[in-house]
Parts: sequence; C-alpha cells; structure tokens
Amino acid sequence: MNVQDPGAPALSHVREDGSAHMVDVSAKTETSRQATAQAVLRTRPEIIGLITDGTLPKGDALAVARVAGIMGAKKTPELIPLCHPLPISKVTIDFEPDAVAGTVRILATVKTRGVTGVEMEALSAASIAALTLYDMLKAVDKHASIGGILVLAKSGGKSGDWSIEPSTEGENR
Amino acid sequence: MNVQDPGAPALSHVREDGSAHMVDVSAKTETSRQATAQAVLRTRPEIIGLITDGTLPKGDALAVARVAGIMGAKKTPELIPLCHPLPISKVTIDFEPDAVAGTVRILATVKTRGVTGVEMEALSAASIAALTLYDMLKAVDKHASIGGILVLAKSGGKSGDWSIEPSTEGENR
Amino acid sequence: MNVQDPGAPALSHVREDGSAHMVDVSAKTETSRQATAQAVLRTRPEIIGLITDGTLPKGDALAVARVAGIMGAKKTPELIPLCHPLPISKVTIDFEPDAVAGTVRILATVKTRGVTGVEMEALSAASIAALTLYDMLKAVDKHASIGGILVLAKSGGKSGDWSIEPSTEGENR
Amino acid sequence: MNVQDPGAPALSHVREDGSAHMVDVSAKTETSRQATAQAVLRTRPEIIGLITDGTLPKGDALAVARVAGIMGAKKTPELIPLCHPLPISKVTIDFEPDAVAGTVRILATVKTRGVTGVEMEALSAASIAALTLYDMLKAVDKHASIGGILVLAKSGGKSGDWSIEPSTEGENR
Amino acid sequence: MNVQDPGAPALSHVREDGSAHMVDVSAKTETSRQATAQAVLRTRPEIIGLITDGTLPKGDALAVARVAGIMGAKKTPELIPLCHPLPISKVTIDFEPDAVAGTVRILATVKTRGVTGVEMEALSAASIAALTLYDMLKAVDKHASIGGILVLAKSGGKSGDWSIEPSTEGENR
Amino acid sequence: MNVQDPGAPALSHVREDGSAHMVDVSAKTETSRQATAQAVLRTRPEIIGLITDGTLPKGDALAVARVAGIMGAKKTPELIPLCHPLPISKVTIDFEPDAVAGTVRILATVKTRGVTGVEMEALSAASIAALTLYDMLKAVDKHASIGGILVLAKSGGKSGDWSIEPSTEGENR
Repeated sequence: MNVQDPGAPALSHVREDGSAHMVDVSAKTETSRQATAQAVLRTRPEIIGLITDGTLPKGDALAVARVAGIMGAKKTPELIPLCHPLPISKVTIDFEPDAVAGTVRILATVKTRGVTGVEMEALSAASIAALTLYDMLKAVDKHASIGGILVLAKSGGKSGDWSIEPSTEGENR
Repeated sequence: MNVQDPGAPALSHVREDGSAHMVDVSAKTETSRQATAQAVLRTRPEIIGLITDGTLPKGDALAVARVAGIMGAKKTPELIPLCHPLPISKVTIDFEPDAVAGTVRILATVKTRGVTGVEMEALSAASIAALTLYDMLKAVDKHASIGGILVLAKSGGKSGDWSIEPSTEGENR
Repeated sequence: MNVQDPGAPALSHVREDGSAHMVDVSAKTETSRQATAQAVLRTRPEIIGLITDGTLPKGDALAVARVAGIMGAKKTPELIPLCHPLPISKVTIDFEPDAVAGTVRILATVKTRGVTGVEMEALSAASIAALTLYDMLKAVDKHASIGGILVLAKSGGKSGDWSIEPSTEGENR
Repeated sequence: MNVQDPGAPALSHVREDGSAHMVDVSAKTETSRQATAQAVLRTRPEIIGLITDGTLPKGDALAVARVAGIMGAKKTPELIPLCHPLPISKVTIDFEPDAVAGTVRILATVKTRGVTGVEMEALSAASIAALTLYDMLKAVDKHASIGGILVLAKSGGKSGDWSIEPSTEGENR
Repeated sequence: MNVQDPGAPALSHVREDGSAHMVDVSAKTETSRQATAQAVLRTRPEIIGLITDGTLPKGDALAVARVAGIMGAKKTPELIPLCHPLPISKVTIDFEPDAVAGTVRILATVKTRGVTGVEMEALSAASIAALTLYDMLKAVDKHASIGGILVLAKSGGKSGDWSIEPSTEGENR
Repeated sequence: MNVQDPGAPALSHVREDGSAHMVDVSAKTETSRQATAQAVLRTRPEIIGLITDGTLPKGDALAVARVAGIMGAKKTPELIPLCHPLPISKVTIDFEPDAVAGTVRILATVKTRGVTGVEMEALSAASIAALTLYDMLKAVDKHASIGGILVLAKSGGKSGDWSIEPSTEGENR
C-alpha cells in the first residue's frame, strides 16, 4: 500500500523498532520558511459582536487571543513532543469574524530561518488563539466549538511551496 | 439583546473599563468537577492503520499523543491567559479511530477538586493530542485537519451537570 | 542589632547552616489574601500618546502588557526560586498614563485563598507588564526606564492589613 | 510629530490594522550582540549586611538572586510576548551593595550571536534578580522597592554601539 | 504472580485497555506529607575541594545546585507526565561531600499538604541538583557519574511512614 | 594541584570573584555534536515484565518514559541553570530491560548543530526517562533506585570524540 501523499518526502526516519523519536534534521538545509494555518471558532451569531466590541465578561477577547496565539507559537516544542525547537522570526495572528455565520476565522502566520518547517507552530498558534476565544465566551455560550484547523500555505524547504483556498466550509476537508 | 445561554451564569465579572482580567473566583465553592471534551483528526482513510499500528515514520502516534494530551491538560493555565491554575486530580485520553471515515476521535476527561470547572483543561488536552497526531502524520498527509473540538459533558459547579451526544458529524454544531 | 521591621514576623525559618531553602509554610492558615503592587515606566512625554492610542510599531502596547502581566503573575514560582506555588484566584492590571510626566503607572492586584501572601505575584505581574511596555517602545526610545516597583497594599495573613499612598515621586522611597 | 529617538531604526514593522505582532526579523544579519542592564534594590541600610553576609532568614540572597537572574534571561521570550527567542551565549550577574545608601545595584550582561539585540534579556535578568532579593528580605523589610531598571550599554546590530554612565541617582533618567 | 510490595496499595487504577493515564486522586484525603530522597555524585577525589570551595570554573557549584534542586522540585509535574500537580510547602537541599570517596551525597526533603505523596518531587530535586553539579564540573571531569537515587524516608498518606538507612554503598540496593 | 582531566579544556571561564555565570560560548565554532548517556533503573526482577508488557497500574511505562525523556532533553536549559540553550536536532531513547538483574538500562542520544556539546541534554533525557519509570512502578516497588547516570560517548567539538564501554556494573565508575 502506498500511503504517501503526492509530493511528500520519502518515508525516512523510521527506526527499526518503530519507537517514537525526534527525527534527525541536522543534515537539512537552513532556509527561510513560512506557514499559514487557520482555526475556526463557531458560536451563536449574537456573540460575535461581543467578541469584536471587546465587551465579553472577561474583557477584550481578540487582543487576549492574539497574544495567546503568539506565545503559543513559541511554546510549540514544549507541547508537541517530537517537534524540533526553532528560532521563530515572525508571528502574526489575524481574525475574520462573521456575525451572520457566527464564526471567527483565526489566521496564524509563522516564519523562521531554520531547518524544519513551521506548520506545527502556525497550527498551535491558531489553535491556542481559538481556545482562548472559547475561554472568554464560555460564560455566554457553553456549546461553542472549534474546527477547521489546517495548514493553508507553506513555503520554503525541500517539499516546495503550496497553498489551498480557505472555503466557507473550510473547516472540513 | 439577551446573549446569555439558557442556564449560563449571570454576566458578572465585567470590569468598568472592560479590560481583560482573571476574574475573582475566591468566593466560589470548592467541589468535585469533571469535564469531557473531544477533538477529531481527519486524514486519508489509509493513514488510520498507520496510526493504530504505530507504524508512522516518527513512531507510535497514539502513545505519544496520549502523553502530550495529559501534559497539555496540566499546561492549560500557561497557554490560556485568563485561566485559573487548578489542582488536576485525573486525566484520561481515549482514541476512537475510524478507518472508513479516515478520522480519529480523541476524548479527554479531566477531573479536579477546585473552584472552577475544567472544560478548558479537557479542551486543551484533546486539542494538543490532536495536534500531536497531526505532527506525526504530516510526512504522509500534509492536508490533514482537526475539527469538532467541543465539550461533551460537564459535572460539578453551580451551573449544573449536562452532556451532549457526539454525532458522526459532531465536529460541527 | 535589630533589623526587624516593626510588625514584621519573627525571624524564624533560618537554617542552622544558613543555606537557602523554601521555608515551611505547611502550618500556616489558609486565608483569603490580596496584594497590590506598582511599577512605573518612564519614557519621553511624546511617546505616551503612542502607548495609549495603540500606535506603537509593534501594536497595542497596553493590551499586550496587560496579558503579559497576568501570565507573569502565574509564572512567579517559576521565576523566584524560593516562592511557594499558589492557587491564584484573581489578577487585574491597570494603567495610569501621564503624558505630561512621560510615565505610565502599572497597578497589579492579585488575590488568592492560600497559606502565603501574594506580594511577589503582584510585584512580578507589575514588573513584567512594565518590561513588556519597554519592549514595545524601545524602537522609539532606547533610554526608557522602569522604577517605583513596590507593594502598595496587602491584606490577609498573620502580619495584618496595610497600605501606603503612591506619591508622584512614588518610584523612590 | 516626530517621536523617533535620534539614531533609532525607522518605524517599520507597523501592521496596517495596528495589531500586535512579533515583527519579522528574518532578514536581519546575525552578528555578535551584547547588552548590559541594571536594576537597583532599595531597602533600609541595616539590611544590606544581611544580604552580603548571606544571613537573611531564607539564606544566601546574592547566590540565589544570581541564579534567578541567569535563568530569567533564558525565560525572556516566555515572559515578554513579542520577544524573539535567541540563543544566549553568555550571562553574568554582578551586585554592587551600598550599605550607606541602603541599595544593591544589580548589573546583568547578556551576549548572543543572533539577529536581534539582547536588551530585553539583560533587563529581565536584572529585574528578576532584584525581585528575588526582594523576596528574600521581605520578612525584614516590607517597604523595599526596586527602581533604576534601564539599559546601560549595547553593542552589535544596525543601531550602533552606545553606553551611558550609571550615576548614583541612576535609577531615574 | 504477586508482584506487590508488602504494604503497597492495592493495584487499583488500571484502565481496562491498559492505557497510560493520570490516576484519579480526587477521593484521597488531604494530609501533611513529606519525603526525603538522595542522589550521589561520584567524581575524582581531588575535585571535591573545588566543589566545596566554590572554585570550579563556572563558579560556586553547591549554591547553584541547591537553587536548581529547589526549582526542580516545583517543575516535577512538568517533567514526569503522570505526576499530579501539588502545592509544595517546603524544600530543602543538603550536601554531604566526601573528599576521600570522591562523592557528594545530595539530600532533598519536600513537604506538602496534599492528596498525593511527594516522593517524585524529592527525587526530581535530588536528581536535578546532581545534574547541575555534573554540569559545573564536567570541564574538569568528563567521567563523573550519578547514582544512588532513591527515597530514604516518607511520612503521611495511607501507606504509612517508613525510612531506610543510607549506607556508604547506598547508591545500589 | 592539577585537577584537570587529561584532554579536558583549559580552565578558562573563571570569573575574578569566582561567581557563578553562564560562560561565554560566542567564539566557539558551530559544529555537529552528539552525545549518548545512560541511566539504570533498578527494581525487583518480577517487575521488569510489568514494565515491558505495559501492564503497570498507570499503563505503558516505556512509551510514557520515552516521551518524557525526549521532552526532558528539550527542557535541559530550563533545569540546569548554567546550560546554554541549543537547537536540538535529534533525540532517541532506547531501553534495555534485564529481567534477571531487575534493571532497565536507558540510553539517550542527542544531536545538535551548535556551539556547545549536548552531554547535559543526553543526561537529562536519560534521568527524566528513569524518573518516569520510577513514578510508574512506585505503587508496586517503593524501594526502586536509579544509578549509573553517565556519558557513554561524545562526538564533535574541540575536545575530540570518545566513548566508553557500558559494563554490567556500569552504574558505578
């Protein structure tokens, strides 16, 4: 069975006993790398205004979630056991609230000059920003949910640049 | 406009200037509290066997994700800025792989004896376990996604016990 | 020589060999405790508007500093070697900018129900919020400074409640 | 209004919406960089001997504060949200106690070979060492204070080398 | 086969699928608990004087190792995946250097008022203090080793109080 | 007295006042460096099967200890005060259980491309993996111990490559 993605790197890095390990990246080339990931918070439509106005009970949700996402990107190798530490050189977090759909799309872009990609950093940043929004609105909506966590674009590294279009149903593949 | 969820606590805790803050929970009663949250990883169906057999390039994905989720629960107050630190007394992480749908449902249950609920701890645990699975399979599927992050059940605390049924489309509300 | 502050607790806790240690607080009573501390950032007067308008190059300085201060309070026992971990139950950070003096006073209030006071948590929160402001304005003022870090008020615990008046020259005793 | 410091870098890095972000440093040149910062602890004169003799109730204050300062330098990107992680290559902490004035000046020097300066690392190291001294003497002086936190010298990087003279009133600009 | 230690708690806490988890301690009684653990650093005899005099190249080894051990006790639940977080109420680290044998015995005592024992905290404290000594002397002895890490005494909790005698060959059972 | 190990680097890095500091490594050459360290857990022989079968009360001990060791390697500069942060490029953890002797040897290999060696990272990884095993079996053996923590091999850097043979009594020098 061939489970490789078209364009994926060869299945190297497998240990003989199959045990989990942090793979060897010491021979990889240091290049400029960037990744953008998203997460989508889904709540009741009438909550979106409270988020964007900064009037949720705990305060200005977007400002807090932005900081949480940036700090979350830096914490990635502490959270994801087999992730390599990386010298992050840029993080941005953007929000696209949709008061009709009752959603906030969170976009996280991370850049590094390093030997591995920054997809996990971008995904962690978007996820933690979304969890922070959840925390701030859970007093008014205990059934909010988070979905659509995926990588939208990647550049740099051996596997080439690519991007996908976030669709309105983008939270599912 | 009334944005409160039926059964939600009154909108206290708003500061006059609306600034973000960690709300005062010192007057809340210490009780036994539990929450279960889920996250759903979505990949290509043929990858599911590699996850459950422990044959992904980086090793045994479920064991690593389980540890990451448990440690993630403990890291919640470091990740979510306005979360209160809590003495966690139990964490379990379970996986429900579905090789037909190409999904792995992650269930995280967290228990405490404390003054606030543990929904955020359960959500963080499930999310970080899911991100860890993503990290371990991204060499073979760069278009995996994570969704369906929500609280399934909660007990203890003033707001009462409740639970919802995870549906097969559970990743969206 | 009597170096004790009037009202200070007796000099217990000294080890025979004088070695540093985390003192035993297991016999202390758990009570509600609160402390307020301040730090004062000093910059050029024309910078104050950039801080309060959120127009510094790196973005909205007060929102970022507020989150940093709250998270800093939670990190106190990781930063201060002999500090006891405490279940923080409330943190607020307030800013008093003075565009004439070229200062921003930062007020941090921390509350707990525990066996030790929260002065260090309040001081750490104020200091880290001030350092964050410094970081955000250093591109426009490399000679900013931080001073006036002290405890303004304390309640709860054996040593009794007290407070002092922050004066305009409050950064020096 | 021109708020730029003479010699400060141009006001780049502003995002269109003014939102907080970790600025892009991937194009900056990696050079050897060093910074020295100070903090000044102010207490009652008779306490200074207890600090320098290592006879405070909690033990040898200078040794503990030195370690806290060094570890604090390494924690800087975890504390200051928009700080870039840096491979620190040297940290020293020195103390200048003055038993007449009742002060201890803390000098922290940090060095790196990296793309950004290490002012924040030096400031964090000095501040956390000062907070640690405060923690160790607060049993005998609850009105101690910390001030004079500023950068004394910087070398390396595009903005050029500079230093200022710490004066006896150095804690204020 | 009966693998239980005489006096060990019954083998509860096993999950049906045998998966790793943080066991439920919410029903355990909160009592005062204490544990003492040791670690033994072994180097060349002539190095011991450098350790006790504080004249190793990197500086005063015992003071640095003491602080590292105390902070290490607080980090235990971050290091040991299935450890419960605990409100540590006391930590002491003592050193017993033996210039004839070329050893330094490290004794760590940790106390809490909580629902689980503090053996892991005491073991982590002793181990990290020993690793710190190793780090400080490795420039002069690259073949140092650490052994004899075990619990010497425990009190509080359901399993009763006990202690063992550290022997000169105490590093092996 | 000459306390230097044959082949050890010259005793540089001593500060005039002998104070502890993180030594300056900015002039050292960045090369590929690797180190392997071991730790040996000693328990009762009949426990070894429970470890290797994954049937200890808390679950699959080897999988959990492996993840703890890998994450411990990354945490080294947070634990060991004077350690420099390093971009780790590979970590593996292997276990050699011996059901006759009642031991599990843990081997940790860490690789970097950096300016300092990774002995401390390998030692921390092996130690934390061993402490994690201890935590998982302490319900069935409260007198387990850990020893034999030492560096087995090192390559890269100025001091040259070397290795030693782990003997069955390898836990003591």
